[in-house]
Amino acid sequence: MAGSSLGTIFKITTWGESHGPALGVVIDGCPAGLELEAADIQHFLDLRKPGQSAFTTQRKESDAVHILSGVFEGKTTGTPISLMINNTNAHSADYTDIAGYYRPGHADYTYDAKYGFRDWRGGGRASARETAARVAGGAVALKLLDRLGIHILAYTESIGSITASPDRFDPEEIFRNPLRMPDADAAEAAAKVVAKKREAGDSVGGRIACSITGVPAGLGDPVFEKLSANLAKAIFSVPAVKGFEIGDGFGVSEASGLTNNDAFCIDADGRVVKKTNHAGGILGGISDGSRIFFRAAFKPTPSISAMQETVTRDGRPINVSIHGRHDPVIMPRAVVVIQSMTALVLADALLMNMTARMDNVMKFYKC
Amino acid sequence: MAGSSLGTIFKITTWGESHGPALGVVIDGCPAGLELEAADIQHFLDLRKPGQSAFTTQRKESDAVHILSGVFEGKTTGTPISLMINNTNAHSADYTDIAGYYRPGHADYTYDAKYGFRDWRGGGRASARETAARVAGGAVALKLLDRLGIHILAYTESIGSITASPDRFDPEEIFRNPLRMPDADAAEAAAKVVAKKREAGDSVGGRIACSITGVPAGLGDPVFEKLSANLAKAIFSVPAVKGFEIGDGFGVSEASGLTNNDAFCIDADGRVVKKTNHAGGILGGISDGSRIFFRAAFKPTPSISAMQETVTRDGRPINVSIHGRHDPVIMPRAVVVIQSMTALVLADALLMNMTARMDNVMKFYKC
Amino acid sequence: MAGSSLGTIFKITTWGESHGPALGVVIDGCPAGLELEAADIQHFLDLRKPGQSAFTTQRKESDAVHILSGVFEGKTTGTPISLMINNTNAHSADYTDIAGYYRPGHADYTYDAKYGFRDWRGGGRASARETAARVAGGAVALKLLDRLGIHILAYTESIGSITASPDRFDPEEIFRNPLRMPDADAAEAAAKVVAKKREAGDSVGGRIACSITGVPAGLGDPVFEKLSANLAKAIFSVPAVKGFEIGDGFGVSEASGLTNNDAFCIDADGRVVKKTNHAGGILGGISDGSRIFFRAAFKPTPSISAMQETVTRDGRPINVSIHGRHDPVIMPRAVVVIQSMTALVLADALLMNMTARMDNVMKFYKC
Amino acid sequence: MAGSSLGTIFKITTWGESHGPALGVVIDGCPAGLELEAADIQHFLDLRKPGQSAFTTQRKESDAVHILSGVFEGKTTGTPISLMINNTNAHSADYTDIAGYYRPGHADYTYDAKYGFRDWRGGGRASARETAARVAGGAVALKLLDRLGIHILAYTESIGSITASPDRFDPEEIFRNPLRMPDADAAEAAAKVVAKKREAGDSVGGRIACSITGVPAGLGDPVFEKLSANLAKAIFSVPAVKGFEIGDGFGVSEASGLTNNDAFCIDADGRVVKKTNHAGGILGGISDGSRIFFRAAFKPTPSISAMQETVTRDGRPINVSIHGRHDPVIMPRAVVVIQSMTALVLADALLMNMTARMDNVMKFYKC
Repeated sequence: MAGSSLGTIFKITTWGESHGPALGVVIDGCPAGLELEAADIQHFLDLRKPGQSAFTTQRKESDAVHILSGVFEGKTTGTPISLMINNTNAHSADYTDIAGYYRPGHADYTYDAKYGFRDWRGGGRASARETAARVAGGAVALKLLDRLGIHILAYTESIGSITASPDRFDPEEIFRNPLRMPDADAAEAAAKVVAKKREAGDSVGGRIACSITGVPAGLGDPVFEKLSANLAKAIFSVPAVKGFEIGDGFGVSEASGLTNNDAFCIDADGRVVKKTNHAGGILGGISDGSRIFFRAAFKPTPSISAMQETVTRDGRPINVSIHGRHDPVIMPRAVVVIQSMTALVLADALLMNMTARMDNVMKFYKC
Repeated sequence: MAGSSLGTIFKITTWGESHGPALGVVIDGCPAGLELEAADIQHFLDLRKPGQSAFTTQRKESDAVHILSGVFEGKTTGTPISLMINNTNAHSADYTDIAGYYRPGHADYTYDAKYGFRDWRGGGRASARETAARVAGGAVALKLLDRLGIHILAYTESIGSITASPDRFDPEEIFRNPLRMPDADAAEAAAKVVAKKREAGDSVGGRIACSITGVPAGLGDPVFEKLSANLAKAIFSVPAVKGFEIGDGFGVSEASGLTNNDAFCIDADGRVVKKTNHAGGILGGISDGSRIFFRAAFKPTPSISAMQETVTRDGRPINVSIHGRHDPVIMPRAVVVIQSMTALVLADALLMNMTARMDNVMKFYKC
Repeated sequence: MAGSSLGTIFKITTWGESHGPALGVVIDGCPAGLELEAADIQHFLDLRKPGQSAFTTQRKESDAVHILSGVFEGKTTGTPISLMINNTNAHSADYTDIAGYYRPGHADYTYDAKYGFRDWRGGGRASARETAARVAGGAVALKLLDRLGIHILAYTESIGSITASPDRFDPEEIFRNPLRMPDADAAEAAAKVVAKKREAGDSVGGRIACSITGVPAGLGDPVFEKLSANLAKAIFSVPAVKGFEIGDGFGVSEASGLTNNDAFCIDADGRVVKKTNHAGGILGGISDGSRIFFRAAFKPTPSISAMQETVTRDGRPINVSIHGRHDPVIMPRAVVVIQSMTALVLADALLMNMTARMDNVMKFYKC
Repeated sequence: MAGSSLGTIFKITTWGESHGPALGVVIDGCPAGLELEAADIQHFLDLRKPGQSAFTTQRKESDAVHILSGVFEGKTTGTPISLMINNTNAHSADYTDIAGYYRPGHADYTYDAKYGFRDWRGGGRASARETAARVAGGAVALKLLDRLGIHILAYTESIGSITASPDRFDPEEIFRNPLRMPDADAAEAAAKVVAKKREAGDSVGGRIACSITGVPAGLGDPVFEKLSANLAKAIFSVPAVKGFEIGDGFGVSEASGLTNNDAFCIDADGRVVKKTNHAGGILGGISDGSRIFFRAAFKPTPSISAMQETVTRDGRPINVSIHGRHDPVIMPRAVVVIQSMTALVLADALLMNMTARMDNVMKFYKC
C-alpha cells in the first residue's frame, strides 16, 4: 500500500475517487519563492478536463482548482501545497450495475482480489479521473521547469494505424485539433477512425510521444535512480499505458553498435554535443544535455458498449455492455497527464542533482 | 544521488565499481527463516559471469560470492544480508586510454558532467559489471519466490532481426545455447549474425522476454506503486535497456477495445480467470493471477572496435576504436539480470501486500 | 524539504497553515476494511480543539472534519484517506505586527533564514494549529489499534513544579479537569500556578506521560528503525517538545546494572514476562510485550504578553509584548497530539512486523 | 524490517553481526569530490575500538577499515562508498551458554519474539559492536562537515552521580582520560565509581553531552523532519540510550516563558543572534545558527557478572551470571558513536537544505 506518493525531494501525494466529494494532491518539497497562482494550475487542468470534444467523455466537470496551503502573497512558501478539485458531476447511479460484476480490461477484479471489496462508483480510485490530481501537481512542477528554461512537448503520435508524419509536424497544431496530434492530416484521418470505432461500440489505442528541451546534462542518478528508470515508472503508472521506450526504443533491438551509438562532437559554443540522438537524451541513466524523447503505448479504452463476456462477483458468467460517459480514445486527455508526470520526475531530479558535488556544496555554504 | 537502493520492505543496496577491489549488495528486509547458502546465490552468478562462451567478454572472473552477515545456521535472521564478490581479473591498464575521452554510447560524458570527474577504470560504477551485485541480491529474492511457488523464466527473444519462434519454444533450450534463446534454430541463426557483426568490429541489439507464473492476484498498489510501474523502473534501470512493454505492449496502440480486453470466466476450480491475456497479467497495476509477461529492448553493445568519432575531455575531436574484453551482444548475460530484477520487485510487492486488509492484520495478531 | 510525511506503510502527509483556508491530512496505507466514520475522528479533534477552557486559546474553531476519500460504505478501501478541517476563525489581522519582527521562542527567524520569507499569519505552518491534522490522522491509527486491543493513555504528568502523584493516579480524572492531569489535587494546584503565570503575562512548561498497553512483543526493527527511535522522532516532531525518555529515562544515568535490568520470569499463562519494567517495554529497540511508557518535556508557551527583547526583520532591536489568543500552557491540548503520534508510530510498526518471518509469509500465501 | 538504513540524500546502510566474518556500511549520496582516505575513517574507529583501557572490553579488535568502492584517486566519486571491518577476535564459544536463555536488559527475548530465532553469538546484530559500522559511516560525514567548518564535540557528562563540572570544562581533557570526561577531577572520581561497581559484578549508567558549532541557520524541515526530531531518532537508535534532550531539555518543564525564551539581538557583525540559548540551537525544528546542544542518557551495561534471575528459551527459570568481555560503562566508547550519528543527521540536513529556495535553484542552474 501507500502507493499514492511519488518523488524524493519534490514529492506529491494524490488522493480521491472518481465519485467521491473531491480529489486532490499535496506537493511537498517545492522550493520556496516560486510564483504560483490558481490560473497556472487551471490552465493544465482545462487541457485534461472532460467534455471538451466529441472524443472525450461528456461528463461535465469544471475541474476548478483550489489552493488550500503552501502559497502566500503569490509565492510558494516551501511548505506543502495542497490543491483540491471538487467532483460536481458524479453520477454514481450510472455505475450501480458494475458493482456486481468485473468489467473486462478494468481493475474491478484486481481491487476486489486485493482489498476484499471496492468503491465501485465510477471505478473509484482506479478511475482515470485520478489523473486530475497528477495534472494539478504536475502544473507546479511545470512552473518550476519553465523558470529553468525546460520545456515539455507531448502529443498524440498515433491512433490505431494512423501515425502523425514527422514531415508535417507542427507543434501549434497539437492543441488545435481535439485528438492532440501535431499533424492536421493525420488528425483528420484519425478522427474518422475513432468515430467509426465508437459507432461500433468499440474503442482504439495509440501512442503519445514526448520531447523535452532545455534539460541540463547531469540529471538522474546511477543504478536504480536513473532518469530513464524514473521516467519509465512515472509513465507506466498512468492508467492504460502498456509500453514505454526512450530514443530509438524497441528499434535498438535491430540496430548495430555502429548505427546506434551517437558520436560526440564540439558545437559552435565549444560544448560537448552528440551528432545524432538515438539515445533519446539519456546515457547511462543520466541526461546528456540533448533533447529527451520517449514514447508510451496506450491501450484502447476498456469501457465499450459492444457486448463482452465476464463474470459477476459471485462467480456467474454474464454478458455486459458498458454504458456511461467514456472517452473512445484515451490519448487526447492523457497528453497533459504525460506532460505532468514528466515534469514531476524532472523537478525531483533537478533538485536531487544540486547535491551531487562537494564543490557546489561548499559554494552554497560559502566555504 | 543515493541511487543504489531499491525496494521498500525487501530492499537492496548495491555498491562497487568494475575495477575496484570488490562489489556487493546488502539485502535488508528479507524475512527471517529462509534457508539460504552461498550455493543458492552462486548458481545465478554463474549464469551471469563473463567468459562463458565466445559471445561474452573473455574477462575471467570466478564471481565467487561471500555471505558476510544475516545468515545463521543456514537461515536468514531478518537482519541485513551482506554479499560480496571480489574482483580478481580487473585489468585497469586496458582502460587508461579511455580516461581521456568519451566513449560513444557510454556514460563517460554524463558522469563527468554530473560529478566533475569519474572512475574511468572499466567504466567504474557505470559498467555492467555492477549487475553482478543485482544478481546476488536477486538470488535471495528468487529463493523466497521459489518457496511461494512463483517462477520466473527469462530468455533472449530476439537478436537483431532473428526472433525465437513461439512454435519452437523450448524452455530447456534456453540454457543449452550460449545466446539464451528458447529456440535452437533461432539460436543458431543468431550466432551467425553475432559472429559476423563481431568480425566487422560491430555489435547487435535484441530483446529479452520474461514470463512469471504462480503470482497470486493482488500484488501491486494503486496509482504510483503499480506492479507494472515498479517492473518498468527496475527493468529500465538495467544498463542498455531502451524499451519495456507488458502483455501486448506497443501492439495495443493498434488494437481495439474488443480485441484487447480479456474476458473473465470461471475455471474448473471455480476461480475467476481470464480467457486471454493481452494484459500480461496486470490490470490497473495489480496482478490478476494470470501469467505476467513483459519484454525489454536492449541496445547493441556500445563498445565496438570499429572506428568512431568522439571528443576528448579537453574538447578535441578524435577517432577511436574501443578495444578490451567486451560482449558482442548484451542479452545472453542480461537474461539472469532481468530475472533478478523481476524477483526483487515481486518479493517487495509480496511482502507489501500482506498489510492490505484489516481482516488479515487481525488474523495475524490473533484478534 | 518534503518534511510533512511520516511512516513507511501506514503513512501520513499533513498540510495547512494556521490562517489558510483549511488544513488536512492524507493517510495512505491504512488497511482496507477498517470501519471508519467522521465521528471516530471528531472525537479526538474535539479533545484538541481550542476554546475548551480558561487554559486554552479563545480562538473558536469547531474543527469539524470532512472525509474526502478512502472510505466507502463505512469502511476504509485501502486507498488514501483525505481528511480536511476548515479554518473558520482565523484572525490574520491579530498578527500583522508580527510580520515585521521575530518572536522569541518561535520559528519566525528560522523560517525566514531557511526560506527567505514566511507566511506570518498566526505562525503559518509553524503554528501548533498544524497538529490538528496529526490528530485527524492519528484518530485513524487509534481506530486500528483499538481493533487490536492496544490502548494509549496520555496525560499531563506535571505543570511547573506540580507533579501528579502516582498514588492518586486516576485515569478517569484526566478528562475531568481542563489540565488533563490524572490527579485531581495536582490539577487544582496546577490551575493556580497557571492562573498566576498568565496574570503575570507569563507561561509555564510541564511534562506529558504516555502509557501503552496491549502491544505484542516484536514491534520495531533493529538498528535505525527501533520502535524507541521512531517514537523519539515522532514525539520530538511535536512543537515545544525539548526532551523525551523511555522507561526510567534519564534516571538510568544514575542506576546500576543490577537495579536497572528487568528479570525475566514466566507468568501464570506460561508466557515470558518481566518482573519489573525499567526498560519501559522496549528492549533492543523492539517491544517486549510489557507496558510501554515514555515522557516528553514541553517548554512554556513562547507567546507571552510580558515585555521581551527582539529584533525586526530589518535588524532593528525592539521590545515586544505578544498578544493574541494563546494557551498559557501547552500540555492540556498536546495530550491528544502525543496520543496521536504514538498511534501513528505503532500502526506502522504493527504492519511492518507482519513481514518479519518467512513462516508467516508462507502461511499468508497458503504455501 | 529494512531497519538498517538512515538518511534521505546522505544515506547509510549498515550490516554485520558481532561474531560474523565482518561488518560494514554503505554510504550512498555522499557528494563527489570529497577527499577521503582510510586514515580519515580509522581515526574515529580507533576512538571506539575495544581494549583501549581497563574500562572497556578486553576483546582485541584492530577494527581496520577497508574502502571497497566509491573513492578514486583520493576523492569520493558520488557513487556508494562501501567500508568493511573484519571481525578478527570473535570468541563465539564465550557465548554458547547464552544461546539457551534470555539475558536481562538485552534484546535476546525480543529478537526471538520477532524472528522466531536469533544469532546468539555475541548478541548478533543487537550487539553494540554494530556501532563500529556507524562510526565508519559517520567518519565520512564528519569529513564533509569539517570542510564546511562544522565541529561536533561529544563527551561523557556524567557517570552515576559524578558529573563533569562546567567550571572545569576542558575539551583537551576528553581524550586524555579513558572515561572521555572533560573534567579531570570528575574523571578521577568516576573511575573509582566504575572500578567499585565492576568489582561488585555490577555496572553503571551515565550521560553523554554533545555540542555542535558552525551550523548555519536553516537546517531541518518543518513538521516531521525537524532537525531536532531527526537527532532524537538517530541518538535513540544507539544501543542503551533511554533519554534525549535538547537545550534546557527536561529543565523546561519547570521553566516559564520569560526565563525560557531566548531574546534575539544583533551582533557586532550585524547578524541576528540570540542572547541566551535555552533552545539549544534549534527553533521550530530548524537550526537557528547558534550552538546546538543535546544530552543522551545511557543505561548501565546490562551484561554483569552478578547473579540475576531469568528464563530459558524453553520457559524454565534460572539464575545466571553473565561472563565474557564487557565494558563496565558504555559511555566512553559511545562518545564517538554519538558524534557519528550527529554528523550523519547534519550531513543529510545540509544537503537537503540546498533545495529549499527557488532563487538558489535558479542560481545553481544559471537561470
